[in-house]
Amino acid sequence: MQVVITGGAGFLGQRLAHKLLQNADVQSLTLADIVAPSGPADNRVTLIQTDLTDPQAAKNLITPQTTVVYHLAAVVSGQAEANFDLGMAVNCAGTQYLLEAVRHKAAGAMFVLASSLAVFGGELPAVISQKTAVAPQSSYGTQKAVSELWVNDYSRKGFVDGRVLRLPTVCVRPGKPNAAASSFASSIIREPIKGEMAVCPVEPSLRLWLSSPNAVVDNLAHVNRLSADRFGATRTVNLPGITVSVADMIAALERVVGSKAVEKIRYEPDDAIAKIVESWPSEFAVDRALELGFIGDRTFDDIIKAFVQEQACIK
Amino acid sequence: MQVVITGGAGFLGQRLAHKLLQNADVQSLTLADIVAPSGPADNRVTLIQTDLTDPQAAKNLITPQTTVVYHLAAVVSGQAEANFDLGMAVNCAGTQYLLEAVRHKAAGAMFVLASSLAVFGGELPAVISQKTAVAPQSSYGTQKAVSELWVNDYSRKGFVDGRVLRLPTVCVRPGKPNAAASSFASSIIREPIKGEMAVCPVEPSLRLWLSSPNAVVDNLAHVNRLSADRFGATRTVNLPGITVSVADMIAALERVVGSKAVEKIRYEPDDAIAKIVESWPSEFAVDRALELGFIGDRTFDDIIKAFVQEQACIK
Repeated sequence: MQVVITGGAGFLGQRLAHKLLQNADVQSLTLADIVAPSGPADNRVTLIQTDLTDPQAAKNLITPQTTVVYHLAAVVSGQAEANFDLGMAVNCAGTQYLLEAVRHKAAGAMFVLASSLAVFGGELPAVISQKTAVAPQSSYGTQKAVSELWVNDYSRKGFVDGRVLRLPTVCVRPGKPNAAASSFASSIIREPIKGEMAVCPVEPSLRLWLSSPNAVVDNLAHVNRLSADRFGATRTVNLPGITVSVADMIAALERVVGSKAVEKIRYEPDDAIAKIVESWPSEFAVDRALELGFIGDRTFDDIIKAFVQEQACIK
Repeated sequence: MQVVITGGAGFLGQRLAHKLLQNADVQSLTLADIVAPSGPADNRVTLIQTDLTDPQAAKNLITPQTTVVYHLAAVVSGQAEANFDLGMAVNCAGTQYLLEAVRHKAAGAMFVLASSLAVFGGELPAVISQKTAVAPQSSYGTQKAVSELWVNDYSRKGFVDGRVLRLPTVCVRPGKPNAAASSFASSIIREPIKGEMAVCPVEPSLRLWLSSPNAVVDNLAHVNRLSADRFGATRTVNLPGITVSVADMIAALERVVGSKAVEKIRYEPDDAIAKIVESWPSEFAVDRALELGFIGDRTFDDIIKAFVQEQACIK
């Protein structure tokens, strides 16, 4: 396998790289990002700083030897809403340039798109299924839905062997808050654990559809073990997650870490954020994903425990 | 109203122009197309030959006075399947350039996109509703579904006041066969009426979702009388149509025109065409469209009668 990961400097890209490098079948792994990626000390790894909105960039990134592309690079939800043109350039045009590069330089290579629950919105059924129509209420969701359609059509035409994974909100993300509208979901757990203040911009009753970083990375690694014929008329899969309210999350934080942590959370309503995250669904039927071997988390308590353990390891 | 119609040389564009010019509120009407459009002898009409795949073209077409854009220009289904790059350039990039031109030169103007039942495909429910997920099985359907998403997002952002009409297969189209996979649906009626041979490339049991040209043009004219608040979380509407099998259509031809006409139809299976049209749905629940005042046809016999009458008028 010769792997390319876009968004390779991001935390999912970095973890996916570590995971894939455990596999002896991986002969080369290229991490590409708009910011200079760091990378595991492994002679199979190449680091490339590149801007995918430049039509030439993808052509340079993909070689005839490329067998798997993980397209994780994206302008996140809050930023795509604030800067429409940048979102369109990176999330739509950037994806199309990359698809074209694979089509013309490595035809039939696997193309894994990280999509999102943000493709859903509007009047939603209580439980989302594979048959639920997308109706994004954000530019990010729109741009992901567009990319999904392209990956499916390029796959149907045999230009790429596409797979689209709709990720739940990933929580607990390590590191700093980012411009994703869902950034608070990690902040309200991560910052209190570090003894820092965190801002919750939404109502405690808001329900979210979450996945731990570990589950998402395992699922990203799993997808390249599936043969194309396991997918039917669509390459798009809603990944497993768990449904929790913000209040549930905070109760879990109290159970796992203690009441001192919970006192670090300050409520500060933010309409722009609330409008986006409230449009997202919080409950999915994921039979298809489970049938394909994708995995989910058990409880939010477990997710917090894993995060605490991981932080302890890093220190 | 200052109207721009792309695909203005096409038969729907031409008929829509005639219809709109009956309205004294129309101060100007521009017909734009890749082939030089002809146009009604009316001093409000401007004819422009332009290529919408050129990013500059849309900027020249739209003025700050433009209030309504009908975007009918498209590479049709059979052609988009045969020439993927042309389909992407016209149906995706072309639409986006036009949206950008409206956003920057006539912000908030109405933008009517002619979309298609071809956005649906794969494993479909027996009856399509507004809630049915799109899963196009053609590049044309993919490109229309992408354009729908953009028009919805540009509308949500207030860049345009978008409306997306998913047209049934339009039948009976006058004129010559074209590169649409559905072209046969009109050919098997139109050619026999003219005493010419026609080829039917699909099984007689194939069911289609059809609309007469008159109903489609009336619906296109109707959409600009609807205020934006009549649309909810989506600007996309499945237009009314009727469900008929190819056998039903031929039986209607025999009833209306006679058995001599039916003898002019030759069966010649064409897998490429069958694969595309068989992926399309043939039955829709159109409550929402009817509620918004869109209209459908009564019977296929009526559609043939209207076509025969019209042909008589032209002669």
